[in-house]
Amino acid sequence: MCEANVYIAKNGSEEEPELYLSAVDSVIPEENDHWRLTSIFGEQKILHGRIKSMHLVDHRIIFETIEEPAG
Amino acid sequence: MCEANVYIAKNGSEEEPELYLSAVDSVIPEENDHWRLTSIFGEQKILHGRIKSMHLVDHRIIFETIEEPAG
Repeated sequence: MCEANVYIAKNGSEEEPELYLSAVDSVIPEENDHWRLTSIFGEQKILHGRIKSMHLVDHRIIFETIEEPAG
Repeated sequence: MCEANVYIAKNGSEEEPELYLSAVDSVIPEENDHWRLTSIFGEQKILHGRIKSMHLVDHRIIFETIEEPAG
C-alpha cells in the first residue's frame, strides 16, 4: 500500500518533523489553506498549513503550519 | 515503489484528467503556485497550478491549472 505519513515541520526545518497522521491515503484541499487528510483506517484530520515537500517513495509528506494572526 | 501519477483536471472535472507526469517521487512547491515534480527516473517538470486531490493508494495526484491573466 502506498499511503504516506504526514509530518509537520517545526520552526520551518525539515530535520525533525513531528508526525501528524500516519498511513494517509487522501489529501484534499479545503478553503483557506486547510487540508482534509484521511488515513487508510478512515481517520480524518484537518490541517491548517501549506505543503513544504512530498517524497512519495519515502512515504513522507511534510507540511508547515500557518501562524494564526494575533488578534 | 510508491510513486504517483500526476494528472491535470480538464475544465475543473476529475473525470478524465490528462496525464502530466508519471512515476512522480517528489513534489516541491516553488513560488507563485508553481510545483517542481521529479519522477523516479529523474525527469523534472514545473507545473503552474493547485492541488485538487491526492489519492496515494491509487497513485493519483490531480492538479488544476491556473489561468494566466489575459494581458
